[in-house]
Amino acid sequence: MTSWLEKRAALSPDKPGLYAGKDVWTFSEMAIEAQKLAEKISPYIKNQKPVALLITNQPQSVFFIHALQMIRVPVLMLNNRLTPEEWGYQLQDSQAQLVLHEEQFSVEAEAAQSIDECLKSNGGPIKRFEDEEICSVMYTSGTTGNPKGVMQSYDNHYASAAGSAFNIGHNPDDIWMCAVPLFHISGYSILMRSVIYGIAVRLYEKFDEQLIHEDLIDGKGSIISVVTTMLQRLLDVKGEPYHPLFRCMILGGGPAPLHMVERCHNEDIPVFQSYGMTETSSQFTTLSPGDATRKVGSSGKPLFPGEIRIIDADGNQCETDEIGEILLKGPSVTKGYLNRDQSAPFSNGWLKTGDVGYLDQEGFLFVADRRSDLIISGGENVYPAEVESVLAGHPAVIEAGVVGKKDDRWGEVPAAFLVVADQIDEEVLIHYAKERLAAYKVPKVFRFTDALPRNASGKLVRRMLKEEINDESV
Amino acid sequence: MTSWLEKRAALSPDKPGLYAGKDVWTFSEMAIEAQKLAEKISPYIKNQKPVALLITNQPQSVFFIHALQMIRVPVLMLNNRLTPEEWGYQLQDSQAQLVLHEEQFSVEAEAAQSIDECLKSNGGPIKRFEDEEICSVMYTSGTTGNPKGVMQSYDNHYASAAGSAFNIGHNPDDIWMCAVPLFHISGYSILMRSVIYGIAVRLYEKFDEQLIHEDLIDGKGSIISVVTTMLQRLLDVKGEPYHPLFRCMILGGGPAPLHMVERCHNEDIPVFQSYGMTETSSQFTTLSPGDATRKVGSSGKPLFPGEIRIIDADGNQCETDEIGEILLKGPSVTKGYLNRDQSAPFSNGWLKTGDVGYLDQEGFLFVADRRSDLIISGGENVYPAEVESVLAGHPAVIEAGVVGKKDDRWGEVPAAFLVVADQIDEEVLIHYAKERLAAYKVPKVFRFTDALPRNASGKLVRRMLKEEINDESV
Repeated sequence: MTSWLEKRAALSPDKPGLYAGKDVWTFSEMAIEAQKLAEKISPYIKNQKPVALLITNQPQSVFFIHALQMIRVPVLMLNNRLTPEEWGYQLQDSQAQLVLHEEQFSVEAEAAQSIDECLKSNGGPIKRFEDEEICSVMYTSGTTGNPKGVMQSYDNHYASAAGSAFNIGHNPDDIWMCAVPLFHISGYSILMRSVIYGIAVRLYEKFDEQLIHEDLIDGKGSIISVVTTMLQRLLDVKGEPYHPLFRCMILGGGPAPLHMVERCHNEDIPVFQSYGMTETSSQFTTLSPGDATRKVGSSGKPLFPGEIRIIDADGNQCETDEIGEILLKGPSVTKGYLNRDQSAPFSNGWLKTGDVGYLDQEGFLFVADRRSDLIISGGENVYPAEVESVLAGHPAVIEAGVVGKKDDRWGEVPAAFLVVADQIDEEVLIHYAKERLAAYKVPKVFRFTDALPRNASGKLVRRMLKEEINDESV
Repeated sequence: MTSWLEKRAALSPDKPGLYAGKDVWTFSEMAIEAQKLAEKISPYIKNQKPVALLITNQPQSVFFIHALQMIRVPVLMLNNRLTPEEWGYQLQDSQAQLVLHEEQFSVEAEAAQSIDECLKSNGGPIKRFEDEEICSVMYTSGTTGNPKGVMQSYDNHYASAAGSAFNIGHNPDDIWMCAVPLFHISGYSILMRSVIYGIAVRLYEKFDEQLIHEDLIDGKGSIISVVTTMLQRLLDVKGEPYHPLFRCMILGGGPAPLHMVERCHNEDIPVFQSYGMTETSSQFTTLSPGDATRKVGSSGKPLFPGEIRIIDADGNQCETDEIGEILLKGPSVTKGYLNRDQSAPFSNGWLKTGDVGYLDQEGFLFVADRRSDLIISGGENVYPAEVESVLAGHPAVIEAGVVGKKDDRWGEVPAAFLVVADQIDEEVLIHYAKERLAAYKVPKVFRFTDALPRNASGKLVRRMLKEEINDESV
């Protein structure tokens, strides 16, 4: 089976496919790089179990991703901000057969293989599986606190790319700027769109607002994917207008505040607010700039042919403007979680997002509350249940409640309410949490209390904690 | 299940979706029209067998097509140029449960229902099937002379629309001019793209070069689908340059002659030569204007993610530049023929086109000979075997060989070589053929001969007849 990059290289061999710093690769040069890597990797491949990648936003990482598509094994994209303990869980849960990691990350796993070592090996003929449908796996947590591997099939990525093109348009000369992590669906999906559309990616190691600001002015990209924090940082440096070739800023990771929307409108920044998740292979709804000021707070309408349904607690469809759980259906929606009951996240074929929201009379989606009280901090998802479970593991802690506290820089940061058996120092808790959780998940604020608010059935009512912590800051 | 038009109407209710003459319908107005028709049709619907449509290029026909998608029964698009006998064959073969026909066409079938009568009926609630995958059926002939119903699934149409957008780009303000018949894949696919992309169709009853010429100058469309004959007729009236919004002329139905390509190049007409068939749900390859003069005679490269393979008589893959049978693979390729062995047209999952051609070093496709000596006359396919079989049915005819004779207006016209038992007048044969064949299939030229050229195994060698008839005209 021919990989997407190889097909693209056959169609548009001499077209630039990747820019990074001063370097540029055409699609055929990319295919050659990826083929070399596929040869290096092949001797390690024993079966069609996932291969984990632990990488940063480097051109080499792009080639590794395409190399694994040539072999056609699922790639498990590890979030490089997690702790070794968190990686360990995902590797075990996914039964990954191999972990290719950059030297800077130390992975304690039998299947671990440093990329430098891999590159030194002789390699062998490219092993190619024919029938693998799963392209990528990314772990997310949820209500239970146990991260689960979301599977994205090739069909999911294809449908996501098509739906986005139908929505924002497709110009064969587009360049998509990627300063979001490749291990998140936001970054990974840009690589897929690049080969599906035949357009170049401009890859950034990290989000440097000054550099990206200049590139936007110089017309070095026509589309960029950002989260709210990034947009705010760009607005903070904004001086000159962006280049006329720049046509689309896709904004994910939580709704933009009104002042931000208005400022973008006034400065002619074409912001497309969106709503999506790992389970939908990237944005599922998009709000076009034309509707941005008319529908403030909305995440727009689904990408074609996706559909949204809002249901109440009894599973009945809600009326217009009535708040309920958001259910999604469409070809970009995951088939399920790796090594789990495939029907679990669905209700009659509709993905239960756990998010809460409503559709207005014109069919625009308004997300009222993120799933499982999800905290979005600088574009990273933090699941309260996961953090609570770690904190409650400390001997001194009886119970914990974690919520998002508003933050000018990160949008939100985790805040912990604790009931403790013995008095304990914040620093000790932070140290304890940091060993077990990625830094962005570690609470930045601690409050000690006698009891946590619970409802009649004993369930933690995080909403009350959230009000308390955010009222403080007003 | 929500139909594509209904989804589009929910996403872009106020956007124009259809222009015809001085009339315009937004997507939501279209959905209302189609829903009304779906109500009218529903009482006639008993099962998920195909419903045949025998219509002309009218707005109402567009609404009928979408109405049948709401009910989600396959639509059999009948070519309105065929004879009642030919329609009869397709209706029987497809087991159509209902034939909706315009008053002007007289169909002798139990399931026939005039559209006027249907419109007068009371109707009922819209019946909606959930699981039907086949969207449309169109009959084509082939080597055997027996027309077969090519099935296009919803997935096929979706992939075709996506692949085309990735190739020629997608501008949300596009307007696609449709002067090709809705009952051909070229026209039907424009309607699908309209609702998938969210762009308008400008529908023409027929190809009137003067009118279309003016509309191209006035910027009334940005894309148009044409066959070679239409392009020639447009060039014949060409005076002023077309409007700058006009960006793409998709040319199907046989390769364009060099002088035409050069003229388009000189006059800045953005011609995209293509190769495709009913079995690929529209164009499968496209040659961009940038390559047009560099690759004269080529049909370009596949739309992503389609693939081409050329094989020799033993089924082995041909070398670069080596002529063999063209095989195709991709998500826009049909699953097979209606009520036939589904594996028949495939070899290891590759569609055997019967066409002959080669791939050059850069992967550009050159079609050397159309399948089964296919004659393309004014964009309509004429299969020699079908015409020969009819002619040989006349008592005076012993055997017949039919080939394409070059024609300035139509590209090709059918020419018949006959071995007869008794002398017979051409007019008698023409009359006989016209009763059984669509007018465009009836030979325009007759030659009487003592014997037809056959190879060692007794197979008719049409190539020799073709050379003979075309040498005459030089």
